[in-house]
Amino acid sequence: MNLKDYIASIPNYPSEGVTFRDISPLMADGQAYRYATQQIVDYASEKKIDMIVGPEARGFIVGCPVAYEAGVGFAPVRKPGKLPRKTIEVSYELEYGTDTLTIHEDAIKPGQRVLICDDLLATGGTIKASIELIERLGGVVVGCAFLIELTDLKGRNKIKDYDILSLMEF
Amino acid sequence: MNLKDYIASIPNYPSEGVTFRDISPLMADGQAYRYATQQIVDYASEKKIDMIVGPEARGFIVGCPVAYEAGVGFAPVRKPGKLPRKTIEVSYELEYGTDTLTIHEDAIKPGQRVLICDDLLATGGTIKASIELIERLGGVVVGCAFLIELTDLKGRNKIKDYDILSLMEF
Repeated sequence: MNLKDYIASIPNYPSEGVTFRDISPLMADGQAYRYATQQIVDYASEKKIDMIVGPEARGFIVGCPVAYEAGVGFAPVRKPGKLPRKTIEVSYELEYGTDTLTIHEDAIKPGQRVLICDDLLATGGTIKASIELIERLGGVVVGCAFLIELTDLKGRNKIKDYDILSLMEF
Repeated sequence: MNLKDYIASIPNYPSEGVTFRDISPLMADGQAYRYATQQIVDYASEKKIDMIVGPEARGFIVGCPVAYEAGVGFAPVRKPGKLPRKTIEVSYELEYGTDTLTIHEDAIKPGQRVLICDDLLATGGTIKASIELIERLGGVVVGCAFLIELTDLKGRNKIKDYDILSLMEF
């Protein structure tokens, strides 16, 4: 199965000159969604994971079925104000301004082996912040799995010390 | 398994006098998350569904593993500006002001049997809007599945003509 057949490319979105890679046709196709999930589950099995972490909101779509199939829990990384109990947070720089991500402080137990799942590896800001959150809680990030890697943006360089799976490259 | 053991109750959140029911301990426990998902999958099998729809963002956490296990696709309902292709939208009234939800106009094909999944049935505004979006695309809503129903808020009355599964009542 060629997963790229299930990605919609939208020119000049969200801004001029950018091509947005939309995973919604992949999710909408039961077979393609299942196939992509199973690739990540195979990777997760090798890594002997205890938990999946996914950044909101498309990280939930990618990570939650992996957690289900692997029989492990799922912890969300969210924007500030979305998690009801005590959180820790990390801020990181964007092209213009900064962004902040949070996680419940009891989301990961020290020593737990964590796989982070998201739809897209672009500049790497979100994944780097997610790694920092997990490590501050004592978790061990054993891998980062993405549906899509935008290779021109070199996000991979921001997380050189970590193992990466990307199912498609653009 | 008593799923209520995995719900954290947070008094006076997000506002005074409200008790927030937090599903994150349930998601964080691989066995509990799997058990809850399988209850919904059993319900989905009886309904012979073609698609799962989930409103952002906790609807993704509930619905995506169900889609995976049932072997069907998943379509997100999102806030305006989050979906990159052509959408339709529905606005609905909140206690103060209005809210708007959107779906890709090709997310559901006419005649498809759809199960909507979300974490919470409260006043019913989100589920009612989601039903309207699906029906405008020609989909048939064959059920609505929730982890939690807040019975005092009588959201069930807003969707009287639809079949409802709720795994826990508070």
